Amino acid sequence: MKQTIFLWIGILFFCELVRAEDSSRLWLRYDTGADARIVCEQSSPILDIAVSELKNAWQGGGQVTLQIRPASPWDELGEEGYTLRSSGQNREVTITSAGEKGLLYGAYHLLRLQESGADLYADQEFTEKPAYNLRILNHWDNLDGTIERGYAGHSLWQWDELPGTLSPRYRQYARANASVGINATVLNNVNANPRILSTDYLRKVQALAAVFRPYGIQVFLSINFSTPSELGGLATSDPLDPAVCRWWETKVKEIYDLIPDFGGFLVKANSEGLPGPHDFGRTHVDGANMLAAALKPYNGIVMWRAFVYEPGDDDRAKQAYQEFMPFDGQFRDNVIIQVKNGPVDFQPREPFSPLFGAMQQTPVMPELQITQEYTGFSNHLCFLAPMWKEVLESDTWQQGEGSTVARVTDGSVYPQSLTAIAGVANTGDDVNWCGHPFAQANWYAFGRLAWDHTLTSQQIADEWLAQTFSLYKAGETETDNSRAVLLHAQLTRMMLDSHEAVVDYMMPLGLHHLFAFGHHYGPEPWCDLPGARPDWLPRYYHRADREGLGFDRSATGSNAVAQYHAPLNALYGNMDSCPDELILWFHHMPWDYVLGTGRTLWDELCYWYNRGVEEVRGFQKVWDQAERYVDDKRFRQVQHRLKIQARDAVWWRDACLLYFRTFSRLPIPYELERPVHELKDMMEYRIDITNFECPPYGFTK
Amino acid sequence: MKQTIFLWIGILFFCELVRAEDSSRLWLRYDTGADARIVCEQSSPILDIAVSELKNAWQGGGQVTLQIRPASPWDELGEEGYTLRSSGQNREVTITSAGEKGLLYGAYHLLRLQESGADLYADQEFTEKPAYNLRILNHWDNLDGTIERGYAGHSLWQWDELPGTLSPRYRQYARANASVGINATVLNNVNANPRILSTDYLRKVQALAAVFRPYGIQVFLSINFSTPSELGGLATSDPLDPAVCRWWETKVKEIYDLIPDFGGFLVKANSEGLPGPHDFGRTHVDGANMLAAALKPYNGIVMWRAFVYEPGDDDRAKQAYQEFMPFDGQFRDNVIIQVKNGPVDFQPREPFSPLFGAMQQTPVMPELQITQEYTGFSNHLCFLAPMWKEVLESDTWQQGEGSTVARVTDGSVYPQSLTAIAGVANTGDDVNWCGHPFAQANWYAFGRLAWDHTLTSQQIADEWLAQTFSLYKAGETETDNSRAVLLHAQLTRMMLDSHEAVVDYMMPLGLHHLFAFGHHYGPEPWCDLPGARPDWLPRYYHRADREGLGFDRSATGSNAVAQYHAPLNALYGNMDSCPDELILWFHHMPWDYVLGTGRTLWDELCYWYNRGVEEVRGFQKVWDQAERYVDDKRFRQVQHRLKIQARDAVWWRDACLLYFRTFSRLPIPYELERPVHELKDMMEYRIDITNFECPPYGFTK
Repeated sequence: MKQTIFLWIGILFFCELVRAEDSSRLWLRYDTGADARIVCEQSSPILDIAVSELKNAWQGGGQVTLQIRPASPWDELGEEGYTLRSSGQNREVTITSAGEKGLLYGAYHLLRLQESGADLYADQEFTEKPAYNLRILNHWDNLDGTIERGYAGHSLWQWDELPGTLSPRYRQYARANASVGINATVLNNVNANPRILSTDYLRKVQALAAVFRPYGIQVFLSINFSTPSELGGLATSDPLDPAVCRWWETKVKEIYDLIPDFGGFLVKANSEGLPGPHDFGRTHVDGANMLAAALKPYNGIVMWRAFVYEPGDDDRAKQAYQEFMPFDGQFRDNVIIQVKNGPVDFQPREPFSPLFGAMQQTPVMPELQITQEYTGFSNHLCFLAPMWKEVLESDTWQQGEGSTVARVTDGSVYPQSLTAIAGVANTGDDVNWCGHPFAQANWYAFGRLAWDHTLTSQQIADEWLAQTFSLYKAGETETDNSRAVLLHAQLTRMMLDSHEAVVDYMMPLGLHHLFAFGHHYGPEPWCDLPGARPDWLPRYYHRADREGLGFDRSATGSNAVAQYHAPLNALYGNMDSCPDELILWFHHMPWDYVLGTGRTLWDELCYWYNRGVEEVRGFQKVWDQAERYVDDKRFRQVQHRLKIQARDAVWWRDACLLYFRTFSRLPIPYELERPVHELKDMMEYRIDITNFECPPYGFTK
Repeated sequence: MKQTIFLWIGILFFCELVRAEDSSRLWLRYDTGADARIVCEQSSPILDIAVSELKNAWQGGGQVTLQIRPASPWDELGEEGYTLRSSGQNREVTITSAGEKGLLYGAYHLLRLQESGADLYADQEFTEKPAYNLRILNHWDNLDGTIERGYAGHSLWQWDELPGTLSPRYRQYARANASVGINATVLNNVNANPRILSTDYLRKVQALAAVFRPYGIQVFLSINFSTPSELGGLATSDPLDPAVCRWWETKVKEIYDLIPDFGGFLVKANSEGLPGPHDFGRTHVDGANMLAAALKPYNGIVMWRAFVYEPGDDDRAKQAYQEFMPFDGQFRDNVIIQVKNGPVDFQPREPFSPLFGAMQQTPVMPELQITQEYTGFSNHLCFLAPMWKEVLESDTWQQGEGSTVARVTDGSVYPQSLTAIAGVANTGDDVNWCGHPFAQANWYAFGRLAWDHTLTSQQIADEWLAQTFSLYKAGETETDNSRAVLLHAQLTRMMLDSHEAVVDYMMPLGLHHLFAFGHHYGPEPWCDLPGARPDWLPRYYHRADREGLGFDRSATGSNAVAQYHAPLNALYGNMDSCPDELILWFHHMPWDYVLGTGRTLWDELCYWYNRGVEEVRGFQKVWDQAERYVDDKRFRQVQHRLKIQARDAVWWRDACLLYFRTFSRLPIPYELERPVHELKDMMEYRIDITNFECPPYGFTK
């Protein structure tokens, strides 16, 4: 009897768990059990998934046909492209592709249309192909389960349990990626532990690759350049040493024996203390080409990171360009240079890296950061699509006007055998994957933009919101529903404005790297640590003094502007023409310099910081209206984080304005809201931080 | 040589100390060394001070004559009143009074005119006499040096050093009081320690009285009703016991032998655990009259406090009236009943106590609280003159319209031999006396209103500001000076608005006693302590429930309104006519009740709390403009406290709205700024409080 009661309690509890909203379903919140008519002549692991997803979830009524059509003109769309046709008359849908993956992507496309409220009964035709061949996540996951710059718990990869035990989340992860077109993943941190290439670990990687494969996800690994000596016991890891080359050839063969579709290596070398070819008197080319040679027989590739800089006299922002440009054309054809979007380091706003649109004979791939290392962790709502769009649409002028970052990397300007785009993942083992419910939108947006960088941020926000919150379904009355429509529009606007708000309250006008040393969460423009590398300290970047503020990168300064093509070099290089958004990136501006708005630099700075605070308060006003339309749990998660963000925005504003005021010695314009913190208190404050959540300024738990 | 250097360093350091602005000079910031011509035929300790003050500071040029003129019509002005005449032609001033104290007050009047920028060269005549005979400070100072509800350090009275050592601050204290017309002081806490009447302590009191006497300050003591048994060793303190009467007679004689002008006793009896006549089955009349009989031969008086209430079924707000009204006419003629301004306890806003305008044969004196127990300690800027004016000008309707609280206590409505007004002091041994530089204005305002309750709050703020900050003197240019004039006006406005702001962000619409248990600083509307007296818990006062908010004191509730004369009882007793400012004091209002503004109670509550926050932010904007016109030290002291106040205002708003929302279940109007704190966090928060400064919500040191 007692046991029966416990059984019933158990069952009830389980049902409650299933019903309770916990954000774990991401944007994939289909009602299941549709039992739709799906026709596909072939069968394969990938196709079976496509069929099963549609069968469970497609509510359109008519039959859906999945067709492999290898003949032209489909070839042009490649294995991943597809055509999706729906007929309004008989409610039938046909998806056609040259490859299985194309049909899988087409299936998710159809479900996305359904979930985002598209008219399913209209005659429609979509022809899709991905902008980049490789759309890859970079996980900065360590083998001990921690994640560098991860704010959503520990690593998804349960290395201890692998390969014997497979977490159900591996499959969910692969499915989520496939649903937005992500087709590859680098499992481990670029600050790589050599052990990842041990046979033990490779068997674990093999197990993950097997789960991911039916979702079209290819596995890559970050490697440590010293692995031959560190793991292999060789005397050296010199890339020109024949024994080292042999070691890599053997290791690569071992990998491909286990994982025939293995993708290749991601390498951070001679950067921030990591080993690399320089340690042996060799060049980046020597290092990359040696690895590329080992991978070549298996169609593997090397993604070699350009994120290198040394402490020294020269502007950090110039160093990647200086280091890599001389090697243009010397890399093997299965090497691609992975370049962060900006020349410094994923700051809230940077100009695009001048390495985009510089090389002509070496493919370059953008590295974006999905995880919010510099944009408030998983506490702050910051939709990153507008920032990424800003970069991708920046014109490099490599081949005259229109040579955008997107077009010089996707093969449009120069034909490239390799095209790729990477995003540093924001996933972790938190139930909701990303910490902040809205951080899921950044994972989503990365996938969508990697597939099609011409999508607008609004389109992406719109469809993500519709799929994730289903506001329309919540209302019980006509009025409720029209309010929901308005709310949806306001939430879209909030997402679109959120990145600019973060820039405003953290680092407006081209300011950068004012972050606290180490954790990169709060403001420490004053940070000074005895013996620290100057280029790791905020003062290196803001250069505040009695005269003014900002880093002179014009011809009179570091001349970083010279790394940009005309007319950008002149545009950026001149105080009067440089856009306000970047002015302190490129210039050391006098405090009383009058900007285009008619306000002085100092006043403008004050206005922008205050605007940031007001913007976040505006987001709170919008989100609180969602209370009736969103499940309680997600509503409170977001509301709680917006409160933190609102407090943090004030902290940022106060810290930066009060600190810079010690140089400008000018009053904050009296019409603006005044600081509520003391500079001294903020300077003494040490944040109690973890990767998962950090309390807002001044708070104790 | 070395010694000489040290000597010089010492001298320089001393000069710096003297020059450094530390607020210790209060509003008495005369330039000294004027060496003016002052003529006074007599000499006495009081007159010598009047002459010396003028001689040092009077800059008017012409001679000042001080004349004692005992003949009529001066008698009407009494010993303290005076006439001040200035002649524009020869720049001469004549001050005439029937008493020495009148001349002292006249001298300070003249200097006040000078320091507040009056035209000294016009023909002017002032005839002044005090509204209340006794204008008395109540110090809640304990014998161990602590101060109950004191927020400016420890007690000024150095009991350990007395009577041998006299701190220079005793004289400064007396001078400050005399300069605003305060003529009496109760040295010790109403929660009195019997030891204050020991011979040892009386000798200390004697020493203080000697310092105060030349400034016209009379000394009083709070006594513990059980002193005969506690200190005297009697078996009882029963006021009808002949031995007890004898003990008091002997003790009183001892006091007057030491201090011939001793003023009398202040008594808190049978209140909040203190002993009193009820302990012996006697009444307040029995107790007060017994003490009055002992004091009568020496012209001493008894100030008997009406602040009594018992836990029980009946509304605490009604109890003082119920207790005392039956005794009207039974008290001896040297007893006066001391009544707090409101019926509960110095809340940010209360209606006036119905005991004002109730008794017809017993004099009643108002007790105001200068120390900011319920208005933000010495952290919040809260100028109390508007609150006191509101009480003093409230019409009791005792003898028809115009029977204001001021007029029913100052002898205008009924002739009274005794008239008095008390203020609970906000002084301590902090260098700046009151903790917050603007808290000095409350000490000042109490004195000025006690002298003349027809002064407007604006007049008082105006003259205090002019004397205390001397903005006009700071400017170096014409523009500076006109900016200073504008700033002075803005600062006056800030002071005038500050009390209403505090009410708005703490307890708008008649809410009261939402304070944290014990310290009375932050919000704890949810406060619940097992076993605590219900009338010491906020819920007793706010009565929030699913239906509404507020304490029903109308005829359908506790009927406290019946203690007010017509037409007030009807005005307050009816939801529709009750002023919004007091509506939750008198009514339990439905959340959706529509007020005169057209908004529901809930929305209005949200609006008022938000207005409070915005008002404080407005004060910051004004004060920050004073940076160029005020010495650095005081500027920063005020600026720092306004920051705390701004943060605290948000804390109050969030705590109260989020808590009350658990009852109203209504959204905060979406156009308003949203909460930034979590109710749960605030409910768990325990403030780390001292009497001197407490950190704002959530902060750690």
